[in-house]
Amino acid sequence: MTDAYEERTRRCQQRLRTVDADAVVLFPSTNLFYLSGFREHPGERHLFSFIPTSGDPVFVVPDMYGEQIADESWISDVRTWSDGDDPLELVGTVADELELDGKHLLVDDTMWALFTQDLRTALPDATFGLASDVMEPLRMRKDETEIDSLRRAGEVADDVCVEIRELGEEAIGMTERELAREIESRLDDAGGEKPAFDTIVGSGPNGAKPHHGCGDRRIGYGDPVVLDFGAFVDGYPGDQTRTVVFSGTPPEEFDRVHRAVREAQRAGVEAVEPGITAESVDAATREVIESYGYGEAFIHRTGHGVGLDVHEGPYIVSGNDLKLQTGMVFSVEPGIYIPGEFGVRIEDLVVVTENGCERLNDSPRTWQAL
Amino acid sequence: MTDAYEERTRRCQQRLRTVDADAVVLFPSTNLFYLSGFREHPGERHLFSFIPTSGDPVFVVPDMYGEQIADESWISDVRTWSDGDDPLELVGTVADELELDGKHLLVDDTMWALFTQDLRTALPDATFGLASDVMEPLRMRKDETEIDSLRRAGEVADDVCVEIRELGEEAIGMTERELAREIESRLDDAGGEKPAFDTIVGSGPNGAKPHHGCGDRRIGYGDPVVLDFGAFVDGYPGDQTRTVVFSGTPPEEFDRVHRAVREAQRAGVEAVEPGITAESVDAATREVIESYGYGEAFIHRTGHGVGLDVHEGPYIVSGNDLKLQTGMVFSVEPGIYIPGEFGVRIEDLVVVTENGCERLNDSPRTWQAL
Repeated sequence: MTDAYEERTRRCQQRLRTVDADAVVLFPSTNLFYLSGFREHPGERHLFSFIPTSGDPVFVVPDMYGEQIADESWISDVRTWSDGDDPLELVGTVADELELDGKHLLVDDTMWALFTQDLRTALPDATFGLASDVMEPLRMRKDETEIDSLRRAGEVADDVCVEIRELGEEAIGMTERELAREIESRLDDAGGEKPAFDTIVGSGPNGAKPHHGCGDRRIGYGDPVVLDFGAFVDGYPGDQTRTVVFSGTPPEEFDRVHRAVREAQRAGVEAVEPGITAESVDAATREVIESYGYGEAFIHRTGHGVGLDVHEGPYIVSGNDLKLQTGMVFSVEPGIYIPGEFGVRIEDLVVVTENGCERLNDSPRTWQAL
Repeated sequence: MTDAYEERTRRCQQRLRTVDADAVVLFPSTNLFYLSGFREHPGERHLFSFIPTSGDPVFVVPDMYGEQIADESWISDVRTWSDGDDPLELVGTVADELELDGKHLLVDDTMWALFTQDLRTALPDATFGLASDVMEPLRMRKDETEIDSLRRAGEVADDVCVEIRELGEEAIGMTERELAREIESRLDDAGGEKPAFDTIVGSGPNGAKPHHGCGDRRIGYGDPVVLDFGAFVDGYPGDQTRTVVFSGTPPEEFDRVHRAVREAQRAGVEAVEPGITAESVDAATREVIESYGYGEAFIHRTGHGVGLDVHEGPYIVSGNDLKLQTGMVFSVEPGIYIPGEFGVRIEDLVVVTENGCERLNDSPRTWQAL
């Protein structure tokens, strides 16, 4: 992969020149992994990669990372500092060499204020923008290797979803947390690296909170349960949602709500093709839900891009007139939320193809026991 | 807990006044959880809490979080925006009400550049500092409830460490990743909520990279293996390290290196008491390792504070003259790293007490099979 990371960096540098910026400054982020091959979580120690418009990037890193970066990245200019040193001295030296002060620098969108404040101090005459200006267009269109990883992550999530639904009556009486642990253990067994995000098991009224994780509520007969989960495969996440009833008879309104969401989700997927806008996919799902009279209860956008980040561009939301292109991957996940009662959400990932899209998830979307 | 969260907020406001700042602005962070009781990961949607020097905080959140915050937080002034709206309009309204433009605002140290850039746009005449100025002194000293959670997290990690070491010869031939999965599954069974960080299993030469996670290398006879892991209990992390040999005879130099680290770690723990500086604990461990002739191979600080964040103040590092106080919790974790050969690190968490400190980890520190 060495060559692929370097090639991405060269494309990033090309784009930098077209947006009149002078350098990208990254910290431990998915952007950094995408360009360098080095992966780390953000931490309190100063770790930067300075990527000028031409020439090779320069790393400034705690010396404990020196060997690891030599192993994992094609970038050979790695300057290290030690615990107890002032890392800003080294930052100043590198900034001088690259002549960055007074220039326009694009920092990681996720860079901590701790570090942006220090960059402002070290480079008092620089101006700052966001790296997504150059990185998002590069990262939104996935190459075949990336799509293949996402496809396998989709299969892992689908397989586990079917297994979990087959628990049927066995799931009754389990707490949401117990079921989430069962899901995560099966994701592991199915080949997932780790959960892509906090597994959501939203039973009964908890399903009406879209970002409820899982709690101590026990799943009862007839409870609608929102199951939203996935795992990483080769660093790329799965992300799917089904809303199911394990056993028993759900609330009267539920079947109609579920049908509305299912139809809306299908309408969204069917709308996808190259050249249409992101917001038109949102409009397609929303229209169906409004026709059922639940417009007010669909309280979030239709979807988000998925790649090295579980949430990234393109966002499928009203106001986003970005035109879809082949290789973009995103979720289509309309939902209806009835506070105090239940929620319904159905989600698949899709990749935009020449003729429309390919679904990366395809387990049954109905609510009835399998 | 409602009262505890509110009381913390009032102490934060008091401190704000003493440092001549006008408000704290938080996003989804451990600071936010510490003051509000609402816990969420950072995401791409604008979610802020504005905490002025007096009066109650104001939340600005995506409307999908409305119900959840009402459930989880004592803060009742929650303004919501919808996907498709411009959240900065609402930010502007709240900033006007609280009269924040032109003032000095302290933002979360971990706040993403995506949001600090927007705050700078919305409040063009404000100046910005870091929330740690007021939050770190509050959070560094743990109360009894917090210490109790940390104590239980320590027991979970210790119990699993003993179990794993008892694998003995069974561990030979496992990959680092397989052993890490086994550790995480046992942490789960022992009552951990989820791993507190990426489990480290560094075998042979991989142990020489302090931040190596786990890979496909198979553990062999005589391999030194660094085991650094822990799990959350009630939101507070465990974090301990042992360096062990599962079976067979380690490299010749290893026993002496291990003894040096063990002695250094003990010297560090014995140095801890209220009133001494953080850096003097670092000096205590470093002195021992230097006396063995491995000073250059101890390439990181001695430790870090532990609380809602796995890494937080106080940092046990040269140059930090902060005086230790009762209730502070941090790691003592010296290490020696021989590139291409092996690494040794031994780590316990300690809480500063009136007379010295209490170790929160106490499983055997030797390397031999249990």
